[in-house]
Parts: sequence; C-alpha cells; structure tokens
Amino acid sequence: MARDKSTVSEAVIRRLPKYYRYLIEMEKNGLERISSKELSQRMGLTASQIRQDFNCFGGFGQQGYGYNISELRHEIQKILGLTGKYNVIVIGAGNLGQALANYSGFEKEGFHIRALFDINPRLIGMAIRGIDIMDIDTIEEYVKEHSVQIGAICTPKEKGQEVADRLIRCGIKGIWNFAATDLTVPNDVIVENVHLSDSLYTLSFRMSDASR
Amino acid sequence: MARDKSTVSEAVIRRLPKYYRYLIEMEKNGLERISSKELSQRMGLTASQIRQDFNCFGGFGQQGYGYNISELRHEIQKILGLTGKYNVIVIGAGNLGQALANYSGFEKEGFHIRALFDINPRLIGMAIRGIDIMDIDTIEEYVKEHSVQIGAICTPKEKGQEVADRLIRCGIKGIWNFAATDLTVPNDVIVENVHLSDSLYTLSFRMSDASR
Repeated sequence: MARDKSTVSEAVIRRLPKYYRYLIEMEKNGLERISSKELSQRMGLTASQIRQDFNCFGGFGQQGYGYNISELRHEIQKILGLTGKYNVIVIGAGNLGQALANYSGFEKEGFHIRALFDINPRLIGMAIRGIDIMDIDTIEEYVKEHSVQIGAICTPKEKGQEVADRLIRCGIKGIWNFAATDLTVPNDVIVENVHLSDSLYTLSFRMSDASR
Repeated sequence: MARDKSTVSEAVIRRLPKYYRYLIEMEKNGLERISSKELSQRMGLTASQIRQDFNCFGGFGQQGYGYNISELRHEIQKILGLTGKYNVIVIGAGNLGQALANYSGFEKEGFHIRALFDINPRLIGMAIRGIDIMDIDTIEEYVKEHSVQIGAICTPKEKGQEVADRLIRCGIKGIWNFAATDLTVPNDVIVENVHLSDSLYTLSFRMSDASR
C-alpha cells in the first residue's frame, strides 16, 4: 500500500466511499467475487475507470479472476481509515446536531459521537440517545479529558469559524462542517464540508438546465 | 445566456453555489465591485479559473473594471435557477427531515417545504414550524392537489428507492436524496445526493492520508 498521497485525485477520493458502500452491500448479500465489468455495471462507472482507480492504491485482484469482495472491502476500509475508532463531538445541538447523534449507523464504521455542545440553556443537560448535551463553555475541558479526533460543526454559519478556531486550539485535526460557510484552518487540519444549501442550488441548477 | 448545457463541467457546477454564497455575503457587506483577482483570493481559486468558469456562461464583467457584485450575483442566481419558486416535500420526518423543515434559510432562496410525510403514527398529525407531518399513504393525493417540484428523501436507505419510485410516478422531477443509497431514476429526473456517511469516510480518508 506504499504510495504518494498526492497521486490520489479528488475524484478518486470521492468514489472510494461509494466503492466501500457497494462492496458492503454485496458482501451482505453473500456475493464472493466480482469482475470489474460487473462492478462497473452496478456502480454506473466504466470497468477501465474502476481498474484505474484501484491502481492508485497498487491494484487489487488478479487479471481474469475478478475481485474477492470481502478482501477488496477490507482493503478499501483500510485506505479510508475505517479500521480504527474516531471519537466525535458535535457542536450545535439543534435539529441537525441531534439528527447526527440519533443516527447509530456511524458507529458501525467506528465513528462514536461522545458529546454534544450548545449555548442554549434549555438544551444543556438533556441527552440524545444517551449522549449528553453540554455547555459549549466546557468544550476545552472536555477535549482535555477525552480523546477527540473529530468535531462536527452544526451551528449557524455566523458561529462556524469561531467554533472551528476553538476546536483547533484544542488540538482537533478533523472538522466535519455543516455550517454554511467556508472555514479557514491551518494546513494540518482537515475540513470536510456538507453545505446543504450548495447541494440544493446544484439540484436547482440541474433542474433548470434540463428544462432549457 | 445561450449555451449548450453539456459544456458545463461537473466541477464548474459544483463551484457555482460557492460563487453565489460569496457574492451574497459581499453584497450584504456593501461591496459593489470586485476584480477576479480579489475574488480569487477570497475564494481560494485562481483568477484565471474564475474567468474560465464565467466564460462557460458567456462571461460577465468588463476587462479591467472587475465585476459588479450585485449584477454578477443576479446572473449566477438566474443560472442556478434560483429566481423562481420550488415547492418541496420531505419524506421521512425523523430528525433529519425535521431539521430540514426547521431551517428557514432555504425559503430565502425560493425553496418552500410544504409538507412532511412519515409512516410513524406518532409523528403523523404533528407539525414542524407550521409544516404538517402527513401519512405517507397520502403523498399521491397531496402531489395531485399541490404543485410539487422537489422531493427530499430522508428515509432509511432500505426505503429510498421505493419512495423515489413513488415520487417519480407522481411526476416529481427533482429528488434531494439523503438516504444512503444510489437511486435508479429515468433520464428526465434529477437526483442530488447528500450521502453523509460518504462525507464522513472522505474526512476519515484525508485524516489517515495526512498522517501517513
């Protein structure tokens, strides 16, 4: 698996989770082996695209034999960094923060939401699926006492950067940003954005474009 | 604004909402004019990238004078299809569906969530910010009586395709899919996916990659 990290393009990175999702599904359905052709048909990619993508990571599977699904799933799981455990805190315990805390699916892949933080006194002290909502002023203390790798920002956009700065000062290197703003962070901090409005605008663009 | 829709690449489409977001912010802050260089610095793109992107739509602004922010915002708003009104229904009134209904920001851009639908009798009859949660069995009836352009699918992944099929049979052409599954739809239906797990896996990949 030795490779230069810069060789993996954004497009390949975006496809990796999709491969992983399809492989898990096929494994669950009892499939053992799949050719790149079959995989490509299921996923709506070309077989050569799939082979190219996998070559970024040294390639998997033998020519003519197809891929062993369980092995391939495990390889991609490792590449995605999903063999370890991540402790996640959520800042902003409104509906979106609560939705994240309520969803148990992330845990299966090793992402454990450990606490929610909010400024609203009516929320502080409550718990979502056993996960406490704590005072936002206790973030620093909490992170000092617990190992936290990822902070999910579910605040209004105006608070996004301020919260990010606090998380970064605490030493958190991974930010899952739902606030509708682009964050400025040091080079060693990774931000993954979920901009819901951008997504909705893209839908609207495509719908208008289709009717032009 | 005459153009061939196929000339606009996926990457440009993904940047359009970001331009729009930055322009709105600058307009709100009272800025009137901006050069492509300044815009590029704010957005973390190159000036030539910005000019190329805008050229896909015939180009805006005059050489040496920069862009009139309000005009540019309005042009991009039109391109994104954000000058009209969209009626949206949300299927699945769990936390995520409720989060969408609770967020009033979408309305400012013309996306009006008109109803939520669920199978849970404890939710049916309730309302979120004045928006009724209705029995999922009444979707067809509702869409027949109301003009609905977009269906947001916030169900578990197992129900995603089934719900999409129902929406499509009702004539809905835009699907905002939060279910962790890829939908199969006819050519004239547009799907925009928000796969939260994929996003989290991408974050995890980048964090692992950075520490390699």
